[in-house]
Order: sequence, then structure tokens, then C-alpha cells
Amino acid sequence: MNRDETFSPLFTDLYELTMMLAYGENHLAAKATFSLYIRGSEWLNRGFFVAAGLEDALYGLERMRFSPTDMDYLQSLNLFPEEFIRSLSEFRFTGDVWAMPEGTICFADEPLMEVTAPIAEAQLVETFLINTLGFQTNIATKALRCMHAAKGRPLVDFSLRRAQGLDAGMQVARSAYIAGFTGTSNVLAGKKYGIPVSGTMAHSFVLALGGDVEAFQAYARSFPGNCIFLIDTHDVFEGARSAVNVALNMAKEGHLLKGVRIDSGEMVETSKMIRGILDEAGLGQVQIIATSGFDEFEIDKALSGGAAIDAFGVGTKLGVSADTPYLDMVYKLARFDDRDVRKTSPGKITLAGEKQVFRKTDRTGRYVADILGTRNETIDETEPLLIKVMENGLLILAPPALQELRERIRTGFSNLDDGYKHLDHSDKYPIRLSRRLSEIQ
Amino acid sequence: MNRDETFSPLFTDLYELTMMLAYGENHLAAKATFSLYIRGSEWLNRGFFVAAGLEDALYGLERMRFSPTDMDYLQSLNLFPEEFIRSLSEFRFTGDVWAMPEGTICFADEPLMEVTAPIAEAQLVETFLINTLGFQTNIATKALRCMHAAKGRPLVDFSLRRAQGLDAGMQVARSAYIAGFTGTSNVLAGKKYGIPVSGTMAHSFVLALGGDVEAFQAYARSFPGNCIFLIDTHDVFEGARSAVNVALNMAKEGHLLKGVRIDSGEMVETSKMIRGILDEAGLGQVQIIATSGFDEFEIDKALSGGAAIDAFGVGTKLGVSADTPYLDMVYKLARFDDRDVRKTSPGKITLAGEKQVFRKTDRTGRYVADILGTRNETIDETEPLLIKVMENGLLILAPPALQELRERIRTGFSNLDDGYKHLDHSDKYPIRLSRRLSEIQ
Repeated sequence: MNRDETFSPLFTDLYELTMMLAYGENHLAAKATFSLYIRGSEWLNRGFFVAAGLEDALYGLERMRFSPTDMDYLQSLNLFPEEFIRSLSEFRFTGDVWAMPEGTICFADEPLMEVTAPIAEAQLVETFLINTLGFQTNIATKALRCMHAAKGRPLVDFSLRRAQGLDAGMQVARSAYIAGFTGTSNVLAGKKYGIPVSGTMAHSFVLALGGDVEAFQAYARSFPGNCIFLIDTHDVFEGARSAVNVALNMAKEGHLLKGVRIDSGEMVETSKMIRGILDEAGLGQVQIIATSGFDEFEIDKALSGGAAIDAFGVGTKLGVSADTPYLDMVYKLARFDDRDVRKTSPGKITLAGEKQVFRKTDRTGRYVADILGTRNETIDETEPLLIKVMENGLLILAPPALQELRERIRTGFSNLDDGYKHLDHSDKYPIRLSRRLSEIQ
Repeated sequence: MNRDETFSPLFTDLYELTMMLAYGENHLAAKATFSLYIRGSEWLNRGFFVAAGLEDALYGLERMRFSPTDMDYLQSLNLFPEEFIRSLSEFRFTGDVWAMPEGTICFADEPLMEVTAPIAEAQLVETFLINTLGFQTNIATKALRCMHAAKGRPLVDFSLRRAQGLDAGMQVARSAYIAGFTGTSNVLAGKKYGIPVSGTMAHSFVLALGGDVEAFQAYARSFPGNCIFLIDTHDVFEGARSAVNVALNMAKEGHLLKGVRIDSGEMVETSKMIRGILDEAGLGQVQIIATSGFDEFEIDKALSGGAAIDAFGVGTKLGVSADTPYLDMVYKLARFDDRDVRKTSPGKITLAGEKQVFRKTDRTGRYVADILGTRNETIDETEPLLIKVMENGLLILAPPALQELRERIRTGFSNLDDGYKHLDHSDKYPIRLSRRLSEIQ
């Protein structure tokens, strides 16, 4: 979203607008509180989440305005009375928002956000909030799982071409960066967010130049200090030997080859053999970068097999969160007109009341358990995670810099026990209800 | 994309820009042709595809301009010579584009587009083209599979909240509509594309009003001619009986209840029992709309089980194409400087040369086979599918209206045999190479 612009509240489901009208006509103007959370389920293969997307969500809430053409369009539907449509020109989001700060390590079934506003307003923003927080939380989580699997090796986001649309490509670059990636291939994300950008050459470059050696030499002329050669256009081992030859010539002119990239095929044995070829030529400093189909599972498989990979480009499967392309994020009415409420249809339990998430840590900062309580209680020796970030529709905290988010996620993740970080069959982090919250269910 | 604006070429991978520089510095300015296609593979559970996204792709190509801030940003990277960056202010995409018209039924491993331009230009647009065509083709295909499974029942796109970002939500609504969906819940897509919008009420509405009956009555007061009641906030059968009571009162005032909506739980037996409750009350015209977790597989399962469902809201799993969240769409150099070229690394075969896809049909229009040939050959009794849509960077065909795309997809799909439409283990549509194309491989 461009921050200088308003944001159209028509980015919503029609029923949010029909309900707005019906609330108004039935004189329901009282305040409501909605809880936003990820519904846990058997199939959800995630031991933890990283809350993300709050900055965009709050910017959107601040900037929601019905434009004249928005109102003309609604008029054209012949569904809403003119008076209702006229009233939309005054619309502002005037609510309060409590949320976990972006970058908080969190878990399914605990609120990441609670929105309190006159019910029509709180209802209208549902679709936008789930869209924004759901996707970014999903990607930041996937990216942090990749970081965990890579055991300290640098990762770069290469997903732009396979992201689900333009906006998704931008959000993925940002979400991966705050999770600890060293950079992105996405140049526009570099410009917009200040994320380091990186990139090398494609197979088409090697083909156009007519061969590995020609391509490597040409690239080295243009970027002598910043070369990573793509070695698998034809035969990866010949490619490696060509890279060695060009690198040795570069060395004579004082330039070091940074790395070679492998983009296809089996990775474990190949990378070890390439390492051998490089080392034998005295090019121990040349890194091997692998970029084919990686996500946390493939990174883990390669490294467990002993692959000699120094860094990964992580693309498609990160960009769409291929194993879990959506989260079951929901936004449920928890309180209305001073009444705690909840939906009771079978199988999907929601919690009534305005809530707080209290995190219990041990003396070293290690996360022990979360307690879901009511918003106004205090629980000794815990930290409340939901912070008031918006009041009467205005931001009350400036969004943190990306570097600060990186640090917050790094620290938070280090406080989480390894049992909750397994890529599959992770332990379930303990979450319980406070007595006060239990009593109002 | 807003069509009045320029589009930043920084929406690309950094290597496209580093290669541009290296091409220039190595005096490689000749024309290149890249083929864009979906790589077929064992795991790809799709018997056919629907080409989509061409309108956005061509608009983007026409509007690509480096802004002053784009150039300042590139300068700040200390990676490119000033002269190169200055030259970008002149950048226009000046190439020719051949493409399958949007809405063409097509298959893996055949080109959906070929781009011919000076190699630096053709290279730069790779990322954007794959992003745009890949995602929309994926969603239009998923949506058409849903249409097939629904056997004539109306489908509505409900995916906005779970789409991967803002832009994805818009693209999904459009892609689903051209595939035959009757509408979308996405109001902004209704405004932008003229897609019919629809929507009803949420569980929060029922909770806020205090009960099923109160909520249904209130909604009927606001939208007497346009009511679909959500009946599963508490107990779905009680909800159905409440809907009957309110509907009978509405009838006295001359208003017909349009439908009831079920959003959770088991669907087959539930829908049959609800049908019984409605019919017994003489409400045979009231439709049952189901909206929980549907995609082509779940629609098929429900209908095969005999569910009494008249229409489906199709949400999350469509919006992210949950079973296949990305396509392996690639953009491969096929010709450069009057030389046919291809990458030969093992396992991933690409085809050299400028190509055409020739479709063989029988006398009734039924698709028999596709023949991949060279662009300049003619093959009797076939229709060439790749059309020149852009010349020297300018659109030479106005994009078709969405209604025309709907009709094109409907007709094309009716010409495809059922064997290629199975949701799983579809037959493989025959594609062969012409002799002339074989000879240049």
C-alpha cells in the first residue's frame, strides 16, 4: 500500500457492508470487540508463529476512506439506501486496537489482535485485517523455519516471480527479511524497505554469451568484485571447472570470485564434488550457493545429507508457503454492548470476552507457557503480549524499523525451546486459560 | 495495477538488471526470443490449464518506466555505472509479444507466450511476466476445475480474506469470474471489473442481534428482497427452523427468502435434512448455499454423496490454489542473434527456436491434439494459438471484455474431452512436435 494514499474500504466482502447497514437500521451502534487469531488444527504443521503485518494493517486502518467513486459504485448496486451511502463519506475507523507487536513469537488459538470499535466499523475491517496479518504471519513463520533449518547459513529470498501477485512479492521480501534473511532478489522491495538486494546471472545469460567460460568472463568484466557464477546451464562439473579457470584469471587481477550457484539436480553429492573441485584449485573461499526448490524441509534434507552448501536462495516454496499456503486466521466477535459473546457451533470453539495473552518466562527469559486471561486482570510474573497500538483510530506507536524487528524475532526465537521448533511433529507449546477467562465462557 | 500509472521495472530480480548491464558492456544488443510455459511434471495434478493474466501483463509491459527515484535507488547500490543508470531513463519495452489469447484452454510444456526483443529488455521483464501470468493462470484453472465439479451449480468467490495479499485478492476475483463463477464477495473487484458482488451475513451479526430469529428479522427488514440467512451460528437445525419461521412471515408481506447458508460441519446429511425442513414448510424455492472449505475436490465429494446444495461459496482453497499453490512456469531463452538455443542441463528439457502451437480439432470443434511447430511453418487443418498481441512495445489488440472471456472459456472447455478433466489422474492431452521443430533441437 502506498502510504500517501487513502485505502479503499471496498477491499472487503460485501456482507461487511450489508451488515453495516443492518446494524445501523437496527440501532446497533454499541462497541464490539473482535479477536483475531489462528485457529489451531490437527493438520497445521507449525509449532510456532511469527506475528507479522501489523504495520500495513494499522496504516490501512488509518487511511480507510470511501472515495466519491466508491460511493457511486455502491449506489449503482441498488442495494443500499442513499442516506446510508452519503453517511459513508464521513467514515473513519475510530476504534482501539490491541495487538502483539510485529515480530512476536506466538501460537495458534491465542489472539494476535483485538479490535474494539462501534460494531459496524469493527465489522467492516475484518476482511482487510485477516488478509494482511494472515499472509505476512504465514510467510514470516515459514521464513523463520527456513532460518532454523539452515543453522546459521545465509538465506536470500528469490521468490518474486512465483509469488501470488505483485503485492505478495513485496510482502514476502519484507517478511523474510525480518525473519533473518540476509536479503532479497526483489529490487523494488530493496527500494521500498531498504532490504539488501542480491543477484547473479541466469541460464539465458550463459546461453546468450555462447558458453560457460565466455559468460563468466563477461560477467567478471562488468562486476569484478561481485561475481557468483551459475554453473549448471549445461554440465555442472564442467561449469565448476570453467568457474575455476576464470576465477584463477580474476585472481591475477586482484579479484576474488565470491561463489558459484547450482540451480538444479541432486544437491548433496553434487555440492560435495564441486567443493572438491574448488578446494583442489585453492579456491577454498569460493562459496557454493544452491537455489533449486528449497524451503525448510529441503534445506534440512540437504544439510542432514552433508551437502557442502554455504548459502541458499529460497524461492517459490517460501513465497507461497507451499506446504501451508494459508492459515485458518479468523476474526470473531467476543464482546458486544458490554456482553461477552461467542459462537457455539460444534467443532470450532471461540472464546468470549476481551482478552490478554500473558507470557510466563523463566529467569533466563526462556518461554515457559502462555496464559490467556481477561484484558483487565494481572497475572504475576508474566508479560502481557497485547499492546494498545491504536486509540480512537490513531496510531499511538510508531512502527519499528526492520532492523529492530529482525532483532526482536532473533531474540524471541532464541527464548523458545527447540522442542517447539521441529519442522514436523513439533511439541505443543502450553497455553492455558486463566480462571477469570474460564469463568466467562 | 492502476492503468493510469507507470509500472516500475524494479519489480524484478536484481540479476535481470546486472545481466542488462553485462549484455550492454559485452555489446550484446541483438534480439532474443524467450518462451514462457508451464513445466509439466509428475506431481502436477492438472489435465488442462486456462491461460490468464495477459491483459495485466501487456499493460505492465506498455507502462514500464524507470522513475527518477528508481534510478536514484539503483545509484545508491554502487553496483552500476552512472552511464548505465542514466540510460535507463530512456527505457521502454520495444519488443514483440506472441501469446495465447486470455481464456485459451492450454496444456503444460507448450508456450503460452513468446517475447522477442533486444535481449536486455526481454530479460528484464521475465520476473513480472511469470508472476502475472503464472498466478492468474493457476487460479483461473483451479476455478474452472471447481466449475466442472459443481456440474452447473452457481459458484461465488469468497476468498478475499485468505488471498496472499491485496493484489492477489483482486486477481482471484477476476480469474474466477472469467472461469464462470457468478460473482464475488470482493466489493473492490466488483467496482474495478464490473463483477457481480454478493454477500449475506456473518456469525457476528447473529451474535450481536442476540439470536437467529432476531438476526434474520433484522436482516429481512433491511434487505427484504435479498435475504440469505446464515443458520449455523449455534445449532444448524434450529437455525433452519428459525429461518422457516421468518420466511413464512416475510411471505405474508410478499417477500421470498432466497436461501440459507451453512458454513461449517458435515455437509451431506446436514444439507439433506435442511432441505427436508424447508420443503416440509413449503419453501421449496429456498436455496441451500454451502461455504465451508470448498474447492473442486470438496464440491465433488459433497455432490457425489448426494448433498442437497444448490450453490457454493468457494473461498480459501481457491484463493491460494491450495493443492497446487504455484505453477512451475518458466521463461527460457529459445533464440538469440538468429541462433536457436536451449539449456541442456539434465531433467529439464527446453525447446529451441521460435514456436507456434497448432491445435488440431475435429469437425465438431473437439480438441484432438496440439502440435508444437516452428513459428513460420503452416500445418494443415490446425489453428495456430499464439497470436501477435504486441508489436514494438505497443498493444495491437484491445483486451477483450470479461464477458467475452467467460464465453471463450466456456466454449473452449466444452471442446475438451472429459478424460482430460478428471480432478485426479487426468488423461494426458496429446502434444507432439512438428518435424521442423524436432529438426532444430
